[in-house]
Amino acid sequence: MKPERLQAFSDGIFAILITILVLEFRLPDYQAGGLATAVLAQWPIMFAYIATYVYIAVIWLFHHDLFGRIERTDPKLNALNLLSLFLTTLLSYSMSLLAETLATSDVPDMTFAFSAYDLLALLISVSYLLLYRYTDSHGLEAGSSDAHYTSDITRYPMISTAIYAVAFLANFVNVLVGLGFLIMGIVFHCYAYWKTARATS
Amino acid sequence: MKPERLQAFSDGIFAILITILVLEFRLPDYQAGGLATAVLAQWPIMFAYIATYVYIAVIWLFHHDLFGRIERTDPKLNALNLLSLFLTTLLSYSMSLLAETLATSDVPDMTFAFSAYDLLALLISVSYLLLYRYTDSHGLEAGSSDAHYTSDITRYPMISTAIYAVAFLANFVNVLVGLGFLIMGIVFHCYAYWKTARATS
Amino acid sequence: MKPERLQAFSDGIFAILITILVLEFRLPDYQAGGLATAVLAQWPIMFAYIATYVYIAVIWLFHHDLFGRIERTDPKLNALNLLSLFLTTLLSYSMSLLAETLATSDVPDMTFAFSAYDLLALLISVSYLLLYRYTDSHGLEAGSSDAHYTSDITRYPMISTAIYAVAFLANFVNVLVGLGFLIMGIVFHCYAYWKTARATS
Amino acid sequence: MKPERLQAFSDGIFAILITILVLEFRLPDYQAGGLATAVLAQWPIMFAYIATYVYIAVIWLFHHDLFGRIERTDPKLNALNLLSLFLTTLLSYSMSLLAETLATSDVPDMTFAFSAYDLLALLISVSYLLLYRYTDSHGLEAGSSDAHYTSDITRYPMISTAIYAVAFLANFVNVLVGLGFLIMGIVFHCYAYWKTARATS
Repeated sequence: MKPERLQAFSDGIFAILITILVLEFRLPDYQAGGLATAVLAQWPIMFAYIATYVYIAVIWLFHHDLFGRIERTDPKLNALNLLSLFLTTLLSYSMSLLAETLATSDVPDMTFAFSAYDLLALLISVSYLLLYRYTDSHGLEAGSSDAHYTSDITRYPMISTAIYAVAFLANFVNVLVGLGFLIMGIVFHCYAYWKTARATS
Repeated sequence: MKPERLQAFSDGIFAILITILVLEFRLPDYQAGGLATAVLAQWPIMFAYIATYVYIAVIWLFHHDLFGRIERTDPKLNALNLLSLFLTTLLSYSMSLLAETLATSDVPDMTFAFSAYDLLALLISVSYLLLYRYTDSHGLEAGSSDAHYTSDITRYPMISTAIYAVAFLANFVNVLVGLGFLIMGIVFHCYAYWKTARATS
Repeated sequence: MKPERLQAFSDGIFAILITILVLEFRLPDYQAGGLATAVLAQWPIMFAYIATYVYIAVIWLFHHDLFGRIERTDPKLNALNLLSLFLTTLLSYSMSLLAETLATSDVPDMTFAFSAYDLLALLISVSYLLLYRYTDSHGLEAGSSDAHYTSDITRYPMISTAIYAVAFLANFVNVLVGLGFLIMGIVFHCYAYWKTARATS
Repeated sequence: MKPERLQAFSDGIFAILITILVLEFRLPDYQAGGLATAVLAQWPIMFAYIATYVYIAVIWLFHHDLFGRIERTDPKLNALNLLSLFLTTLLSYSMSLLAETLATSDVPDMTFAFSAYDLLALLISVSYLLLYRYTDSHGLEAGSSDAHYTSDITRYPMISTAIYAVAFLANFVNVLVGLGFLIMGIVFHCYAYWKTARATS
């Protein structure tokens, strides 16, 4: 399989996933004249939507750069990539859990929902760590292997894995602190992409 | 990232968004023998669907022409584009609000729904203004910078921003006048595309 | 705009539309042990799904061949194409109406639903007639204009328009006869594509 | 029609289908504080999702390799491919039936749901058998016909057809044995792809 086809297929999944997130916004129940109040009470959906949109967008940017460097694929890379995309599609469900529990504010429910999101984000970071290591060790990248690039780029999923692990544990102490770390993880991805993009452009 | 990949990803989002709008059409509740009446009473959905389909289609045309002129991208352009696409995906929810409130005809609810649509349209226009300015000032376009083209093309989002601002304010005087300005904004985009396409073809 | 981009965008819409049709299949209400009966009672959805899947697939084939012959586009062709795609997306709603009324078997409701499907199919055929005429008269096709091809290919939407008009009228006499003509229209598209594809391959 | 366009269209359908599967995950009904329990009780959806995701992904890999070898298409191949894609889209409904009946554990309902999944999987395998035979016998593949490859690759759908037939029959003896064979069928596809990919890379 040519890397271009793998990338086109993956890009399609990212584009579909990021677009169907918006289907989570549904008209709230409301009394005539009370639509504004009812919609504004949907801020948790908006919050969860923005966070997840940014998160998926930045994963896509990293995915894109990774596969843009690859010049041939093999079955294991295909399998790893499909596993990573599988985890990514589950973000749409984590987003629902996040939005729902922010709206109802029950602490045990929030602990569960935030932890589920953290765990998923952690697994996605691990999948990228595996992808970077695999493509590097099997010489699938174009040009000569760039040890500096690889050591740099693999540092990011290691750091984000750590942040999501902390977020996971923090939920059991204080859910808002846990949520803070989750957002920090997503912001970290943006910062990391920014740095990578500037270094390679 | 090559502009072609950015464009393909964006085109994917536009295609998905414009297609899933139709999921808003759901079978109405009806009594046996009363389907025709129940479906015809769904005219507000049809109205909101047509307006939003045309709107997204014309944004896509402008987006397409813009990225067709670009020969390299950078992280800021990527971020701006993802922000613009984020706002565009929200149109599916604005469309629901528009359809629902046209059907129920409660004035405060219509004021809220129309204003939300206007505000979103205004922000989308601003995002295009920023995109045009950024690509021009950073020399990302192919060939020599065409000052005439840039001054022409940036005039359109400025005008549409103004139309949507007027539409927003008009809602608080008379919702139907506000709706008239919203439609005028969408028609203006079509007219502007027509002029641009003729000038550059 | 290059024809390739127009085609890729249109193909995206066809692929999404034909895939989301399956979302119409939802688990029926049923008593424990009665799932088989409940699912088999969904045959009208299966019937409507098969008919609509085949219909959209064959429209896609014609669309594809048309745009494969075109070597440049202009704003009017873009507008005509977006109109044609708009009508096509509405098929997902017509399919729901068809499935629902076949299940409930109320004659006035079936008359309405089948007529709505016929009318939409008729308008789609007219949109292709306009597309063929426009691309021919404006010399947008690759190579020299092939008068024989154009007169052949435009005959098909004229015939299908006639079939759908007969189907529409027949509904008011006998809904099953009307449905027969609707299916005949879809089968005719398949036959016409078959003939065209053999002639040009 | 060029094979590249057929493949891009098919890839689009696979990407959309595999992504919208996740819409099956909906927030469960739950009491405040009981979200974790309610979500964990959704394990049948997760099980059905993982199985179906892996299944569609591996069908895509085989589809991709098949159409990557083809250098021209004809109307019959188009029709066969659209039939195969039609069957594949129905997997989203089979997945719902599988998840629902695993959750309720009613034996007659499970027998029906598992059998429906088996039958669909069997038909999909048959469609690939037909695709391999057709492309081979009509010389649509690039380069010289590779008899060895064809005899190898057509063996796989024959074996999987047999596995799904056994799974279908086993359901009427013991549903869990039937489910075991269904999973075995999906695992077999993965194994077969692995072998093919290693042999051709």
